[in-house]
Amino acid sequence: MPVRSAQATWQGTLKEGAGNIKTGSGAYDGPFSFSSRFEDGSGTNPEELLGAAHAGCFTMALNNRLFGAGLAPVRIHTVADVKLEKLESGLSITHIHLKTEGEVPGLSEADFVAHAEATKDTCIISRALASVPMTVEAKLV
Amino acid sequence: MPVRSAQATWQGTLKEGAGNIKTGSGAYDGPFSFSSRFEDGSGTNPEELLGAAHAGCFTMALNNRLFGAGLAPVRIHTVADVKLEKLESGLSITHIHLKTEGEVPGLSEADFVAHAEATKDTCIISRALASVPMTVEAKLV
Repeated sequence: MPVRSAQATWQGTLKEGAGNIKTGSGAYDGPFSFSSRFEDGSGTNPEELLGAAHAGCFTMALNNRLFGAGLAPVRIHTVADVKLEKLESGLSITHIHLKTEGEVPGLSEADFVAHAEATKDTCIISRALASVPMTVEAKLV
Repeated sequence: MPVRSAQATWQGTLKEGAGNIKTGSGAYDGPFSFSSRFEDGSGTNPEELLGAAHAGCFTMALNNRLFGAGLAPVRIHTVADVKLEKLESGLSITHIHLKTEGEVPGLSEADFVAHAEATKDTCIISRALASVPMTVEAKLV
């Protein structure tokens, strides 16, 4: 099994400095800043990258779970919303909400919801993020 | 505080299908596959995106912590290695190793290590990933 890597650099103060984030595969290499993280500046931020990891893993895992159940999903699409809140203990990710849609011939909505719930609890990234409360909403399309 | 989002799509079987991951800011939009995740195919994967989130957050937080301690770091650079292993319970992220280098005038190596250790335990993404064992290695450059 591979070890995956990524790197980041920061130069300057929190509010006026600038950062860069780059993934090991080279697929992503770009800037981030105080503004792109905590305000509405352009660029990425750690929270959306975490959401990208989670949405990607969950979607791949749910799709594979459905094939494993003898179904033939046509398409699974998931949005991950990562909520950052200021608590007394400091800024924290307090919730991740997954909203998934599937085109899955022959599956009932209730069973799709059950598969989505199980995947939320078991996929690789969900387990790494077990400290964060999370919910899933699933709908057939 | 903002809610950050990202999305993913999968179509086809695990090994022959194809996925796409896109961040809410639009900074990243690209393919992923079984091969880019579990083999050596080109493209991103959830583990390197998680590492990117972690490296970015840790680096920003360590830099800010040093400014808060009255120092003036010139540059902080961190690599996050995310280890995926096959356990009896399934594929899991079993370890994250952060390797950070700092150019910090007037700081001793021991104090840099102490700041890095504290940041590893407290930064926003480290706390979200509290379920994953992690280590940090810190060196002044």
